[in-house]
Amino acid sequence: MVKGFKYAGISAGIKKKEGKDLALIYSDEPLSVAGVFTTSKVKAAPVILDMERIAQGKARAVIINSGNANACTGPQGLEDAKGIAHAVAKEMNLKDEEVLVCSTGVIGQRLPLDKIEAAVPDLVSSLNEGGDDDVARAIMTTDSFKKAFSLSKEINGTLVTVGGIAKGAGMISPNMATMLSFVMTDAVIKPEMLSHALKVATEVSFNCITVDGDMSTNDTVIALASGVSGAEINEGSAGHLTFLSMMKEVMITLAKMIVSDGEGATKLIEINVRGAETPAEAKKAALKIANSPLVKTAFYGEDANWGRIAGAVGGADIRMDESRLDIFFDDVQLVKGGLFTGDEAEKSATAVMKKKEVVLTVEINLGTHESTIWTCDLTHDYIRINAEYRS
Amino acid sequence: MVKGFKYAGISAGIKKKEGKDLALIYSDEPLSVAGVFTTSKVKAAPVILDMERIAQGKARAVIINSGNANACTGPQGLEDAKGIAHAVAKEMNLKDEEVLVCSTGVIGQRLPLDKIEAAVPDLVSSLNEGGDDDVARAIMTTDSFKKAFSLSKEINGTLVTVGGIAKGAGMISPNMATMLSFVMTDAVIKPEMLSHALKVATEVSFNCITVDGDMSTNDTVIALASGVSGAEINEGSAGHLTFLSMMKEVMITLAKMIVSDGEGATKLIEINVRGAETPAEAKKAALKIANSPLVKTAFYGEDANWGRIAGAVGGADIRMDESRLDIFFDDVQLVKGGLFTGDEAEKSATAVMKKKEVVLTVEINLGTHESTIWTCDLTHDYIRINAEYRS
Repeated sequence: MVKGFKYAGISAGIKKKEGKDLALIYSDEPLSVAGVFTTSKVKAAPVILDMERIAQGKARAVIINSGNANACTGPQGLEDAKGIAHAVAKEMNLKDEEVLVCSTGVIGQRLPLDKIEAAVPDLVSSLNEGGDDDVARAIMTTDSFKKAFSLSKEINGTLVTVGGIAKGAGMISPNMATMLSFVMTDAVIKPEMLSHALKVATEVSFNCITVDGDMSTNDTVIALASGVSGAEINEGSAGHLTFLSMMKEVMITLAKMIVSDGEGATKLIEINVRGAETPAEAKKAALKIANSPLVKTAFYGEDANWGRIAGAVGGADIRMDESRLDIFFDDVQLVKGGLFTGDEAEKSATAVMKKKEVVLTVEINLGTHESTIWTCDLTHDYIRINAEYRS
Repeated sequence: MVKGFKYAGISAGIKKKEGKDLALIYSDEPLSVAGVFTTSKVKAAPVILDMERIAQGKARAVIINSGNANACTGPQGLEDAKGIAHAVAKEMNLKDEEVLVCSTGVIGQRLPLDKIEAAVPDLVSSLNEGGDDDVARAIMTTDSFKKAFSLSKEINGTLVTVGGIAKGAGMISPNMATMLSFVMTDAVIKPEMLSHALKVATEVSFNCITVDGDMSTNDTVIALASGVSGAEINEGSAGHLTFLSMMKEVMITLAKMIVSDGEGATKLIEINVRGAETPAEAKKAALKIANSPLVKTAFYGEDANWGRIAGAVGGADIRMDESRLDIFFDDVQLVKGGLFTGDEAEKSATAVMKKKEVVLTVEINLGTHESTIWTCDLTHDYIRINAEYRS
């Protein structure tokens, strides 16, 4: 997927169900590394460990397991996370501090350290340049499809690739909700600049999606730059802007894949709030709509129920004037100046609602700020998946 | 139900389905009146009208329709609300300002004023002292049972009654979510004191329930005091405290009925957060848990999934320390100091989860403040009801 990296994904028997559940991403060369993490007060052990290790800036390998989150596991959990990293370091002749750890799955149960330790030699010997597909599969939990995307562009005459892998379907909310993502590049970029690019791109991608408004204990996005393309990213250059736009495009694509795979989702909904007084108010309104169970079930029912959208905006604690409110389903205007535009428009809006992807635009008409949030509908399958999980 | 009032509930053909949909509460004598209303920026026409009229303090009658919310209907909607009040006033020889109006139902469609005007003579002639049951039925929308409760106590040697009627099942959230409630008393109490009692009691009852985190355009609680018992409520007296506790008990009982009847609900869940640094943080954490779809579906699945509860608290943006967190299902402690207490406790907690009413207690162990929120589980029927509504 991206030059300078090797990948592996195998089954170590961590998940209850059959399938790959242990992955490794590795570079022969020293890497530039950056990370963004859950803002939850309850942070999983691997998150605590990675935050420390990324600050030291020395990582060469990331080991990831699915099936167990190693969250709410106390001091023992931190020891277990260090234990996994140690197993990889020992096998590969690395320092412990050069190995990052990510976990996803059930909360509050001790990690099966023995199973993982036993699988590490196999994992390491499976490393190969084409193994990114195995990584994408091994990190899946309730995901119904694997999520990977990469693109290449010339920077200063040299082809640079940015490629990402992600997992996540439920427990998705802005501010890094249960999802893991690994973004690799072969550009030559300093850790500070990589960290800045990662933060900027996260803000417009993973922090703009919501499935159910819940934030996870384990959310992590790690960026790794191998530098093997030789293309140097210099601060403020045209190449820097190209690199930033590549990071955004890769991460927005992965973020939309996560929402499309929202637990039980049948529709991808893009919510644009325009004309708000501040960017924060635009985002608050967009999130209020996106997280409203009444709005989400109306989408599932393919009902252009604009009253629920107006109700959600009204409850969003932002400045607004009902008599200025416009609402569009794709390009069909169903509300103008706070009032229903009529049965003809409703018929068109109902046709829009039958599509797999719908763009909802809410025009506040007070200011100049806007926000885009992606979400999905709330369905019977969401209930089934989450009422049955663990049992 | 309460002396000094007459009630009526009839069918006027406003609802699509058969059944009563128009109600009237009336007093021969001048009343003390108070109201609390939705804090949504999008307020329904009857809410705007009642806020004005209650400030004038002259009401004698309340007309209520279900089947149409008269919300998002602009200046025409306000004219229609005035029109209904006028029809009642004309029929009963009252001033227009003496009639309050409440509406609940679909948003954004014009009220069928002609049908309501045609039904008003019937409605007025149906008024009788035992008609409170008809009112409770006529104001129902997606409610599956009628909600009424009253109690009587002696104040200064005189029996005083406080009785309430409520409707609401979906779109319920604190800060007055789609629900209507009418609280009647025969006590003699000044409007300012009645208004204060109503606000205090709302804060610990209707503002402490949530079904789906959505707030309505129409939420209204109106308190009416006929004074016919002759029992005077004097500020700061023992009788005043008795009256306040009666208001709270009636309104908490109605509030819990609404949650029990949450759309699709199979369980009533009481969430107690204790040991928070401030009352606001306690309430924020309790609401975060109560509105988490992952927590609500776990209750539906009868799974004591404490990890989702810890995750919700962690994401609640309050001060907390994971290593101090305790979680109880009824009196079964499943988490102590942030850690799982073991399989034996889980077995007991799983038994608790099979009950129709479960008390969840989350002990933050940092401060002295607490909050109680009532909610229900999130089920297949919630999806069915809300995906099909309108169609």
